[in-house]
Amino acid sequence: MAQDLREADLVKSEHSPSATVPHSDIYAVIDLGSNSFHMLMVKVVGGSVQVIGRVKRKVRLAAGLNDSLVLSHKAMKRGWECLALFAERLQDIPAQNIRIVGTATLRLARNVATFLKEAEAILGQQVQVISGEDEARIIYLGVAHTSNSDSNRLVIDIGGASTEMVIGQGFTPKVLASLNMGCVTYLERYFADQELTEQNFLAAISAAESETQTITTRFRQESWQLAVGASGTVQAVQEILVAQGKDEVITLQKLDDIMQQVIACVHLERLNITGLAQERKQVFPSGLAILIALFRQLDIQGMTLSGGALREGVLYSMLPQLQDTNVRHRTVNSLMIRYFIDRQHAERVAEMALELATQLQNRWDLQKFEGMSMLRSSAMLHELGLLIEYKNHHHHGAYIISHSDLPGFTRAQQQLVMALVHNHRAEIMPEVLARQTMTSVMLAGRLTRILRLAVILSMRRRHEALPQVRLSVHNECLNLSLPAGWLEQHPLMRAELEQEVQYQQQAGWVLTIN
Amino acid sequence: MAQDLREADLVKSEHSPSATVPHSDIYAVIDLGSNSFHMLMVKVVGGSVQVIGRVKRKVRLAAGLNDSLVLSHKAMKRGWECLALFAERLQDIPAQNIRIVGTATLRLARNVATFLKEAEAILGQQVQVISGEDEARIIYLGVAHTSNSDSNRLVIDIGGASTEMVIGQGFTPKVLASLNMGCVTYLERYFADQELTEQNFLAAISAAESETQTITTRFRQESWQLAVGASGTVQAVQEILVAQGKDEVITLQKLDDIMQQVIACVHLERLNITGLAQERKQVFPSGLAILIALFRQLDIQGMTLSGGALREGVLYSMLPQLQDTNVRHRTVNSLMIRYFIDRQHAERVAEMALELATQLQNRWDLQKFEGMSMLRSSAMLHELGLLIEYKNHHHHGAYIISHSDLPGFTRAQQQLVMALVHNHRAEIMPEVLARQTMTSVMLAGRLTRILRLAVILSMRRRHEALPQVRLSVHNECLNLSLPAGWLEQHPLMRAELEQEVQYQQQAGWVLTIN
Repeated sequence: MAQDLREADLVKSEHSPSATVPHSDIYAVIDLGSNSFHMLMVKVVGGSVQVIGRVKRKVRLAAGLNDSLVLSHKAMKRGWECLALFAERLQDIPAQNIRIVGTATLRLARNVATFLKEAEAILGQQVQVISGEDEARIIYLGVAHTSNSDSNRLVIDIGGASTEMVIGQGFTPKVLASLNMGCVTYLERYFADQELTEQNFLAAISAAESETQTITTRFRQESWQLAVGASGTVQAVQEILVAQGKDEVITLQKLDDIMQQVIACVHLERLNITGLAQERKQVFPSGLAILIALFRQLDIQGMTLSGGALREGVLYSMLPQLQDTNVRHRTVNSLMIRYFIDRQHAERVAEMALELATQLQNRWDLQKFEGMSMLRSSAMLHELGLLIEYKNHHHHGAYIISHSDLPGFTRAQQQLVMALVHNHRAEIMPEVLARQTMTSVMLAGRLTRILRLAVILSMRRRHEALPQVRLSVHNECLNLSLPAGWLEQHPLMRAELEQEVQYQQQAGWVLTIN
Repeated sequence: MAQDLREADLVKSEHSPSATVPHSDIYAVIDLGSNSFHMLMVKVVGGSVQVIGRVKRKVRLAAGLNDSLVLSHKAMKRGWECLALFAERLQDIPAQNIRIVGTATLRLARNVATFLKEAEAILGQQVQVISGEDEARIIYLGVAHTSNSDSNRLVIDIGGASTEMVIGQGFTPKVLASLNMGCVTYLERYFADQELTEQNFLAAISAAESETQTITTRFRQESWQLAVGASGTVQAVQEILVAQGKDEVITLQKLDDIMQQVIACVHLERLNITGLAQERKQVFPSGLAILIALFRQLDIQGMTLSGGALREGVLYSMLPQLQDTNVRHRTVNSLMIRYFIDRQHAERVAEMALELATQLQNRWDLQKFEGMSMLRSSAMLHELGLLIEYKNHHHHGAYIISHSDLPGFTRAQQQLVMALVHNHRAEIMPEVLARQTMTSVMLAGRLTRILRLAVILSMRRRHEALPQVRLSVHNECLNLSLPAGWLEQHPLMRAELEQEVQYQQQAGWVLTIN
């Protein structure tokens, strides 16, 4: 269980000769899941996790578990063969940097000892088969380390043979549950005929609702402000929504709509809906049915995708240096270190942006959708791309943001920050603002205009060179007021502001300066 | 002059309150050219220069110089207005981090004292008007710091009112010259009627040849292996070649061909040839005529573009910590620091790649086009993109390389390294290999195949885990031999190599493993 995992020995030996000492700066987590075995290898760089390797094999262990809960030798052999691959890399990593966990299938198998004996011999490491409740606890930790929230949240992870549910706050889980239903077992039970009928769906949903009822009361007693999904099913749903041009928040209505699309495909082999990845198809209908049941039973109004789950929970339990309380801040800080951002300047721009935003707040609804936090993050990161090159550093920064893992930001928030960084200088690209789905183009445009002014006003990179400004708005027309005579004494800033009036005009916005 | 520039005071005060102390980690260079005034602001990050700001204004000072070499008040006033802009940023940078140089027009103007008195009052800094020979010396330094070469090289910079020529080796200039011909003065003298006739071209070329004859003997006495151009004219020619699908090496034949394209446009206002930037058009025909004259007089066989010139020379003279002897190595090392590359692993992959290449060298022409150096650089940089994200880190690395300034690499070399990094793992994209112009797709493919094998063979990231391999080739079919029984003991490596056989097959290449 997570609390029992030994504390990592964090002694670094980056410059030691590698002849005998294994890499003590590399960490590995292996997850022996019911469907796949995963190995994840990481290093800590600039205050955050950097993945340096992944190996994944579809072992389908659960398929070898019979009704008497005995795991077949054939399934075990598939598992051992996979572990031999993992062992080849594992031998170069010190034992204290390795965690190996087994979940539902190994938990259920009555002959698990046979599997483990050989597995541990192959790996040269101990395997920890964790209880359902511990799995839920670790999943929660993985979510807490990769998603931002101060309020109570409900976390749901639909696995191959079990579904974990947790309510928690910050890094503390409060209510934990693990149910024996999963997308692999439900596939075999309710979609064995491969037919995507309404009937099959109803049977699966109904069974999942019954299963969930056992914990509904306990979970409904503890309220939550936010639901986060951490499984492949939720990820697949979100990818479908994005591909179909919808916003990222999952609702029961959107799930019902997707179910209708699935039913229209008639047969599992012909399942093909926009945004659904090939490798997900097999277990998607069963996972979807379970998700719909959970939405109904727990009355979930909206759900977003978490960046991490079990593997991340296990990983972060080895990395006490990353136990920051605010995940979003940790991500922003780490990016600032990794990309050599001038922190003083970034903070100056952020302060100026927030001051300008505060002046307009009542008029411009900037508190919505965490707008102020997104503005702050964008200001802190606006010079990210400078490390690559100056001329188009706004493009480079947007590229980096759009391709990075950003724990603490949902995908839509990441898109918004990307759009703001992209548009923080030079020509404004309204199509980039339109491509983000976090908020309306109008609200994204408002944040853009504030960020751009903050960047220009801070251009001298010194606190005492910041002018006192007043920003006001009337029908989307912005007016920036500077102290009398200030512009005459600052011809470069005046030239920049005059150019900015042109840029905003090209984007269809009126900006006046006086 | 460069040697006389005061040594920079490199005391850092990153964490000092910025209330009174200016940014001592920012450096500024101002170049008061005959056509434009430029201000360049930089910081040193991870062992190389990071541009943090540029301001440029087309002051056209040379246009105010009459036949008696008196500079008009109007032209001076344009200059002073521009300097007032620069002064606004300059006040935040300590004097010892600032260099301001004036070139040909100020050198020629008999009333330069009038200009300088007001200019220095506005800037609060001293302006150094440098002699033609000093300009040549500093340009050479700028080229030496941004271009790679061990052998004697000829450097040519065609400015607005003068042309500098240098032969040197490493960081040492040997022969220096400055001639009073430039693209602005020749525009006024030979293309005043704006007609793009063969006659105008012949007159301009002939005049430039006469001017050059004064130094031809001196320059022909000192041989050179490489010609490098550092001016806007040479840059424009290279952009035209790239846009027209030609390789980057400029030859007299290619220049003649471009001249014919220019002549076909008939009139300067209608000048429009593929790859020629709008802002360059005005002074392009005159610059082209001078370049043709230099090719003829100095019998230049091929020329590439330098990454820097006067401004970079002035800048590097302030940065003694960057006086590395091998510019290409400095660039690679800096990228490794900036992007947190695992140096031990990169060196291991580079060694393995070079060892494999050496085994094939006689059969595969890998010594051509600095192939071994390109392979080494690509291996050192192959994990560049890991800082952004693991899954597509080969794409991210290619993005970073293609958008970075890479002193020591020509544009075509940069493209080749980009293509190799892009293709170092996962699916091979032959179209990326075809897009680079450094060498044939076949030779780029050979380097790719070697790099990929080196990456796979080094996957355990430990020296002692590297197998002894033998690589042989027959009709482009590669065979990789491993010690007997080795593959059986290394199932993960075997799986990776089997996958690689597939990838190479998809790209049309045969790879066998035994």
